[in-house]
Amino acid sequence: MFILVCYDVETLTKEGKRRLRKVAKLCESYGQRVQHSIFECKMDKALYLTFENKILSIINIKTDSLRIYILDEDSIRKIKNFGIANIIDYEEPLIL
Amino acid sequence: MFILVCYDVETLTKEGKRRLRKVAKLCESYGQRVQHSIFECKMDKALYLTFENKILSIINIKTDSLRIYILDEDSIRKIKNFGIANIIDYEEPLIL
Repeated sequence: MFILVCYDVETLTKEGKRRLRKVAKLCESYGQRVQHSIFECKMDKALYLTFENKILSIINIKTDSLRIYILDEDSIRKIKNFGIANIIDYEEPLIL
Repeated sequence: MFILVCYDVETLTKEGKRRLRKVAKLCESYGQRVQHSIFECKMDKALYLTFENKILSIINIKTDSLRIYILDEDSIRKIKNFGIANIIDYEEPLIL
């Protein structure tokens, strides 16, 4: 499975900032960061279920958003990237 | 075509902040915002090419990142959403 993990975590509170760090750290251990809050991950169904359980145990569904896309071979081939890729210092805060 | 548009725009400069607003405004006119910097858009090939030209004329490829995914019916059916959806006040700055 090729998974695209996209999240918006509320960061107005200390707890939110902590969740954001935890979500990012978890995703880093499962895949490749392609943008500030987007990861591409390859995993089998069993690993995906573990990952989903873990990420759902971190986010706050009342304040955060998590959107997961499962891409097939055709969609993977058609991914288009423009501009910089994977060279952002993601440790620095970025105001969007 | 079902397009997922994901962007990271540098916002440390005034020009970057302006680009971010322009990119968001453009995407709003083509599709549905699902997260802070992610839009889902339905369009035909011709409209997509117009959109791609427009967004590429706004972003700075030396500092910004734009990633576009083209999803098929199967991937669309499998989209998973957890937590809040489409209820964020996107006009407010969000520190990620």
